Amino acid sequence: MMSKAASLIFRGGKFSSAKKCFMHTTSILGAQNPKVALIFSGCGVYDGTEIHEASSAMVHLSRHEAEVGIFAPNIEQMHAIDHTKGEPMEVNRNVLVESARIARGKIQDLKDLKVQDFDAVIFPGGFGAAKNLSNFAVEGDKMTVQPSVEKVIKEFHSAKKPIGLCCISPVLAAKTIPGCTVTVGQDKDVDGQWPYAGTAGACQNMGAKHVNKDVNEVNVDSQNKLVTTPAFMCETAVHKVFDGVGKMVEAVLKLCK
Amino acid sequence: MMSKAASLIFRGGKFSSAKKCFMHTTSILGAQNPKVALIFSGCGVYDGTEIHEASSAMVHLSRHEAEVGIFAPNIEQMHAIDHTKGEPMEVNRNVLVESARIARGKIQDLKDLKVQDFDAVIFPGGFGAAKNLSNFAVEGDKMTVQPSVEKVIKEFHSAKKPIGLCCISPVLAAKTIPGCTVTVGQDKDVDGQWPYAGTAGACQNMGAKHVNKDVNEVNVDSQNKLVTTPAFMCETAVHKVFDGVGKMVEAVLKLCK
Repeated sequence: MMSKAASLIFRGGKFSSAKKCFMHTTSILGAQNPKVALIFSGCGVYDGTEIHEASSAMVHLSRHEAEVGIFAPNIEQMHAIDHTKGEPMEVNRNVLVESARIARGKIQDLKDLKVQDFDAVIFPGGFGAAKNLSNFAVEGDKMTVQPSVEKVIKEFHSAKKPIGLCCISPVLAAKTIPGCTVTVGQDKDVDGQWPYAGTAGACQNMGAKHVNKDVNEVNVDSQNKLVTTPAFMCETAVHKVFDGVGKMVEAVLKLCK
Repeated sequence: MMSKAASLIFRGGKFSSAKKCFMHTTSILGAQNPKVALIFSGCGVYDGTEIHEASSAMVHLSRHEAEVGIFAPNIEQMHAIDHTKGEPMEVNRNVLVESARIARGKIQDLKDLKVQDFDAVIFPGGFGAAKNLSNFAVEGDKMTVQPSVEKVIKEFHSAKKPIGLCCISPVLAAKTIPGCTVTVGQDKDVDGQWPYAGTAGACQNMGAKHVNKDVNEVNVDSQNKLVTTPAFMCETAVHKVFDGVGKMVEAVLKLCK
């Protein structure tokens, strides 16, 4: 038998009440609040969206009273990684379904994103950007971008709406927006803090200009309305990533005005 | 063929470099930094740890230069929920393996937690606390607590070390620490913001005293060194949950002194 308290929480396996409750991400918003699309690539640093970068972006957007729409492509992941071992699991997972964990159920298929409905778009990092949103993890600077992702980046860019990317995600812009300027942190592994320093050269090989930045900095390419920050490309403390992502969010919102 | 940049990121399915890079959660710590154990129950609000509550706790602990150890029980989840639908999936998942996604791989089996190694313990919320760390979601105030979780709470309590819990997790303390005082938010569904208001009564039925608090408040039971805050028991904006969890972390660290 279920008590009243339990039935409030768990209604026979359905989550009508829970879903309603847990879908709120922003304050009550006026018409003038910026509308920002967030694009996820799964749930977990090794095969999807880096959870703390995503959560940081949501917290900062919420504090600035942005209206947030969350999207992910409805495709299979490259693979699912057991995060205790760093090794692939037997059963693969779906990018949209896993991304919904970070979005608390409030998520849409990326193919339904309409650029006219938003003022800006933000891509958190994590290996999902290099495995599911593109194949950079396997092909490096010979990579291709997932078609629905390429379409979104090109449409926001053409509409002169800002694009924010962090961690490894700037490779998506480097490939898609010819001659843009990005940062993925440092181009040398200074003090062992930048194990992916080679990514800077890969961005340049794809035709972008790379600028070295620290985890507490952003690079703003004003011409292309492109904001990038290193986040967990740096081996650093999680609050520093939170703050760097906050600076990216602020710079993106400033470009919306 | 893999480029140098790609090989830095993806080494034949292994993640020796990635794992090393992505395991850092705190600053370089002196001997005097508080040591805090974080207990996860999976990864995702409907069947595990609420991701934003966990990330918020990690960000605030990192900013306070706490040394963090993350743990989860190595058991099967009650079920895995498709977060796009709110319905159970065919294949179940393991609590420790899923929790590792939030922990970026740096996690240990809860049975290996030694209370003498830590100054405090913190439990984020999410349905995992009511489904995997206990069976509150099904049994309500007739619930039992998962044995390794009960052991940890009793040992920290006996050692007079502070315990922080948020969202639905305070039910674990209500059941385990006789006569303690907790908050799970409001005992009435004021303005439709508190859909789980019945949980307050369940805590009282289990022998605890319940105190109404808002999402930006904590309840401190000084005698039992117990700090609780509502978090996503309230239908609210994610930055308010971030701030409430921050207050819980600060109160826990203060009790460590």
